[in-house]
Amino acid sequence: MIFIVAKFLVKPEHADAWPELSREFTEATRAEPGNLWFDWSRSVDDPNEYVLVEAFKDDAAEAHVNSDHFRKAQEQLPPLLQETPRVRNVVMDRDEWDPLGEMAVD
Amino acid sequence: MIFIVAKFLVKPEHADAWPELSREFTEATRAEPGNLWFDWSRSVDDPNEYVLVEAFKDDAAEAHVNSDHFRKAQEQLPPLLQETPRVRNVVMDRDEWDPLGEMAVD
Repeated sequence: MIFIVAKFLVKPEHADAWPELSREFTEATRAEPGNLWFDWSRSVDDPNEYVLVEAFKDDAAEAHVNSDHFRKAQEQLPPLLQETPRVRNVVMDRDEWDPLGEMAVD
Repeated sequence: MIFIVAKFLVKPEHADAWPELSREFTEATRAEPGNLWFDWSRSVDDPNEYVLVEAFKDDAAEAHVNSDHFRKAQEQLPPLLQETPRVRNVVMDRDEWDPLGEMAVD
């Protein structure tokens, strides 16, 4: 899978509404056959920062970036942001999450 | 660097306080010489889920898991969780984040 983490710094006036503003893009992406997950979370340190943890099957990236909803998001979302998002992505061998044994819950 | 993403499902009664409950561990980890970042964010879909995006220099993992604050967290945090956290980690070549060009902000 392709594992991606991105950080979006949203303009303060749009920060509370970001989940709603990105909902269409989020739902359309989650509906893609090759998407494994596409999950937003909001920084506890900076309420303007949203973290996006995504994963796609190895052959699904191209379909994602060439989709209508991706193109629409490219137009609609950047104007709501303070800066270009930051990202790291990597190809991983397996699709599943592992248990964090050091913090195991009995 | 060692890039780590973990998902913590916190018991509902502790979810709002999680940033505070994990602060000592967070601040001590961020003070480690080998830590690059250790950032919590709260899921927009499930308020009981917190996402931890961490990174350490290649040779810093051992110091982290053998630290006093890690051991203390191993005792204090699991009882506050609904289940064992999920994690993925991977060694990456560079320490920096890349710009997400597809969502570039002019």
